[in-house]
Amino acid sequence: MTGVKIVDFAKSSGGYYAPATLASTNTEALYVSGQPGSTHGGIAPTDYESQIHLALMNLRKIMIIGGVTVKDILKLTLLIVDYDPKRRKHARPLEKFLAGHRPAITLIPVIQLAVPSWLFEIDAVIARPAPSSSVPRQLSLERAEKTVDVVIIGAGLSGLAAATELQRAGRSFIILEARDRVGGKTWSQPSPDGEQGVVDVGAAWINSTNQSRMYALAKKYGAEILEQNTTGKCVLQGADGKCSTFEYGDLPKFDAAIVKDVARIRDMVEADCQTLDPARPQNAEWDSVTFEAYLKSRHASEEALATATVWTRAMLGQDPKDISALYFLTYCRSGGGLLQMRSDRLGGGQHLRIRQGTQLFSIGLARDLPEGAICLSTPVSSITQNGISSDVEVTTATQKTYRARKVITTVPSPVLKTISFTPQLPSSKKLWSESSVYGYYTKAMMTFRTPFWVEKGYCGLTQSFTGPAAVIRDTSSLPDQKHVLTCFMAGDPGRDWATLSTKEREKALVKQIGQLFNSEVESSREFVNMVTYEWISDPYSGWGCPCASLAPGVMDTLGGGGLREPFGNLHFAGTETAVNWRGYMEGAVESGERAAAEVIQGLDAGALARL
Amino acid sequence: MTGVKIVDFAKSSGGYYAPATLASTNTEALYVSGQPGSTHGGIAPTDYESQIHLALMNLRKIMIIGGVTVKDILKLTLLIVDYDPKRRKHARPLEKFLAGHRPAITLIPVIQLAVPSWLFEIDAVIARPAPSSSVPRQLSLERAEKTVDVVIIGAGLSGLAAATELQRAGRSFIILEARDRVGGKTWSQPSPDGEQGVVDVGAAWINSTNQSRMYALAKKYGAEILEQNTTGKCVLQGADGKCSTFEYGDLPKFDAAIVKDVARIRDMVEADCQTLDPARPQNAEWDSVTFEAYLKSRHASEEALATATVWTRAMLGQDPKDISALYFLTYCRSGGGLLQMRSDRLGGGQHLRIRQGTQLFSIGLARDLPEGAICLSTPVSSITQNGISSDVEVTTATQKTYRARKVITTVPSPVLKTISFTPQLPSSKKLWSESSVYGYYTKAMMTFRTPFWVEKGYCGLTQSFTGPAAVIRDTSSLPDQKHVLTCFMAGDPGRDWATLSTKEREKALVKQIGQLFNSEVESSREFVNMVTYEWISDPYSGWGCPCASLAPGVMDTLGGGGLREPFGNLHFAGTETAVNWRGYMEGAVESGERAAAEVIQGLDAGALARL
Repeated sequence: MTGVKIVDFAKSSGGYYAPATLASTNTEALYVSGQPGSTHGGIAPTDYESQIHLALMNLRKIMIIGGVTVKDILKLTLLIVDYDPKRRKHARPLEKFLAGHRPAITLIPVIQLAVPSWLFEIDAVIARPAPSSSVPRQLSLERAEKTVDVVIIGAGLSGLAAATELQRAGRSFIILEARDRVGGKTWSQPSPDGEQGVVDVGAAWINSTNQSRMYALAKKYGAEILEQNTTGKCVLQGADGKCSTFEYGDLPKFDAAIVKDVARIRDMVEADCQTLDPARPQNAEWDSVTFEAYLKSRHASEEALATATVWTRAMLGQDPKDISALYFLTYCRSGGGLLQMRSDRLGGGQHLRIRQGTQLFSIGLARDLPEGAICLSTPVSSITQNGISSDVEVTTATQKTYRARKVITTVPSPVLKTISFTPQLPSSKKLWSESSVYGYYTKAMMTFRTPFWVEKGYCGLTQSFTGPAAVIRDTSSLPDQKHVLTCFMAGDPGRDWATLSTKEREKALVKQIGQLFNSEVESSREFVNMVTYEWISDPYSGWGCPCASLAPGVMDTLGGGGLREPFGNLHFAGTETAVNWRGYMEGAVESGERAAAEVIQGLDAGALARL
Repeated sequence: MTGVKIVDFAKSSGGYYAPATLASTNTEALYVSGQPGSTHGGIAPTDYESQIHLALMNLRKIMIIGGVTVKDILKLTLLIVDYDPKRRKHARPLEKFLAGHRPAITLIPVIQLAVPSWLFEIDAVIARPAPSSSVPRQLSLERAEKTVDVVIIGAGLSGLAAATELQRAGRSFIILEARDRVGGKTWSQPSPDGEQGVVDVGAAWINSTNQSRMYALAKKYGAEILEQNTTGKCVLQGADGKCSTFEYGDLPKFDAAIVKDVARIRDMVEADCQTLDPARPQNAEWDSVTFEAYLKSRHASEEALATATVWTRAMLGQDPKDISALYFLTYCRSGGGLLQMRSDRLGGGQHLRIRQGTQLFSIGLARDLPEGAICLSTPVSSITQNGISSDVEVTTATQKTYRARKVITTVPSPVLKTISFTPQLPSSKKLWSESSVYGYYTKAMMTFRTPFWVEKGYCGLTQSFTGPAAVIRDTSSLPDQKHVLTCFMAGDPGRDWATLSTKEREKALVKQIGQLFNSEVESSREFVNMVTYEWISDPYSGWGCPCASLAPGVMDTLGGGGLREPFGNLHFAGTETAVNWRGYMEGAVESGERAAAEVIQGLDAGALARL
């Protein structure tokens, strides 16, 4: 439903912009002033790429207010100071911003812009389909299939945890789940060739010390816990592809100066993230730049940059140049800090696994809810809030309508774009939803007949500057005699790997595993099968995993706790909104409990007001 | 039928662009990306003016696909590297491109463009009148005045030659001619003051050796042949207006070094043009630049450039900066080479004239056709091809309809724009038609009572770097006691001359003739009258003579033989499409015969298919 057509002489599909675009007569035209790369508060970082991200965010803000989407863009003009044709740094973020839409573009190198610190500016002409004359939706009590206190959207851990709290508080509710299963991003699949055990294609790890919610659920549902192995040699694959070993907890064996620099950067990131309030992270300067620009401003060495790239890839599927420094530091802080979040030992993010698979938690929570509380295969299509009755009507793609006093949505932020809201979501929520992007992130569980790496003294943990796998972890289940290496493909090398056929993907990983563990013969000989799942194609996860992230400028615009702010009777949960262990199961449960508490308080206040 | 209005505070008619333009409500808007000056294959020539031509061609290509014309342009933005306000080289080609339309324009000097080799870029906003909801034209058998095998458009030499071949093959046909006479650009007028003889205001020369078609027609129709005089002194008028003499076939008496350089350039052009296949000329590099840039890249001296300017003016009415080097070299090649095409001697382009005038050929051919085969004063307005019946319907401005299995159009390429095609012509044909332009080119036949120049030992051939006449030739008819100098006004000096009144034009030429032949007294005293015809105002010749030419980039886009490629049952003839002697009568006849052969083959194949 866009008024824009692409015009192309050679019908070439190449190039991320079109020779020309055509606006149909039935459109309004939105003219956007040059948007510079400065923050909400006017900071223009010295880093050029960060300014590009900020300018695109500023354009997106105008577009949200103007009621247009990326697909409506007719023409962009890029004004670039110190343009270097050999390093067209605008192309990558712009291409991501356009998400396949091809407007007309003119690039104008300039000697300066209106403000001396501005290095990049973008203006736009955007078509807006003329408003249709359709009548606004009316609430229709008669149509409601069911009336409850609370509708919960999503039967992942957040939604199930919220429901559990509502049940405890004696409130009526219903969970609407788009998938034909519960669990969301916890999904345990049986092994493909009928062997014993399961593979977790989604969330996999908990711990026993600072993830009290998950540890309690593990106890409650009889989870058999497997401890992550950290005994033995770790491996680093350098930029030249060569491998070296190091002890778990140490830094890889770079030159002494480099080890010192990598440690310096690691400790600096750790210290910086600890300064943040995880509930209300705020730092306009750190949000004005990419994580890469932040590292470069601290004079990180190449090896330190490569190491930090392994962090962002393994944790978010992103490259440091694609995300806000503040976003990454906040993410670390939510898990207690960079070191704790990345640790496989006691208290770390990857300490304990569940032999039955993590979907055990979701299935357990679901079973404890009243019968009929969960509607599977029921994607929500619209949410209408009625200002006068203060009721909310939730309509599904299956043509059912539910009426409630409160709604908790637990869907990942990119999924909010697929739901029609009346009244529309506030601009800040739209900015969040439209700016949130996943990196490329896929886990491949490689099963082998024998744990040849253990036999050779490796613990199974590796990191690689080349890929395809940025990080590998041993996720074997000894009770099941199942020997598995989980490979994390992420960022640019992950995207390259994803273009291969399944056979080629397997081959590439078998080869890399052989190199890493000095076991080329064994890797190939002992390989059984590969299990993987492309979250990037899954609309109900918001096209990605484990957690969507934000480019510079968005957090600063939203304010520290903006993600969690309710909109009328609509409350927001999901692991992205967690204060602690964001992106983890613990964060999902925390967010569900927090949203339930908000809702219960609101319902109680409503009841009081009626007395 | 454009959606664009010019907005002008002072109603100033000056300037080739408008202060503002207004798009009416009922228009779509086409936004064009910055178009650089590079070829189809991505070559950006180092020559700045060539890039301007290429950028305009690239813009035209987009406009063709977008379904808009120059008159629809609302706004242009010019981005210019190394802009020199004293040498606004973009203005000339842009003004020609705009052809009188005045869009809003902003010029932005820039330090560089997106690609280092780009020196000029143009982007545009263009209004497109909303598509009308008219019902597509339907073929209507009942309406057809006549049904024939072939409709031929144009009763010039091409059309008449095609008809002759069809008659020979026993095919039925009809010729639709817009003018009230046959002959097209062969047009012999009686002398204005009742003297003996005729003057050819159009085509004038043939030869006996390599123009076998024309020589055979001359024999057949009893042409009395007059040989071009090359005995006596030739004259060169230099840039300072001073005249010097030289022998026919020699170079003018420049300094020795300059003579050497002019000879070098002449021989280089000759050698280069001989490398081309006249049927499929291809050279992306030569088509990426103007003929002037080509000459400058070979370090041509000023005199060599001036000499080459005389060539392009006398042959095409163009200045070297306005046409593609490949186009000019191809044109030369089609006439056997620069030297042969320019020669007045045996085998040359200007060797023999016809005492009765060259229209003799057309009239003779027309008389040999069946009665009623030619409809005069019948301009074609539309051509509709029916995919299912594979028939073609040709409608005229006189509201008549003809139905045929094949159509041969012989109109000059700019005339194609005036005919409505259903389905539309392919983009490449549109690009050809819309890019084809004539230079300024007018012949003035100056009749004198006595051949005073002959009496003073001149052969009558002159060339001038100043003008008004770039070239003069003696076109006297001794049998008629008629003493005539034909003056070729072309290019910029021709345009200046055309702004004068008839009296002033005569006076200017009488004066120049006096200077050239050192005969100021005689020239004035013996002058009888001037006959001239402004082809530039003639819509049926496509507003010019003798042959339309192309700026850089078009030939490269069309491919070597693109002009001759049929479109469904529509075949293309006319001297422009000839392999040999393009722009000459010989080429016209060749092209008509070739198109007839295509058509006969197609009709035969169709007949076979029905067996």
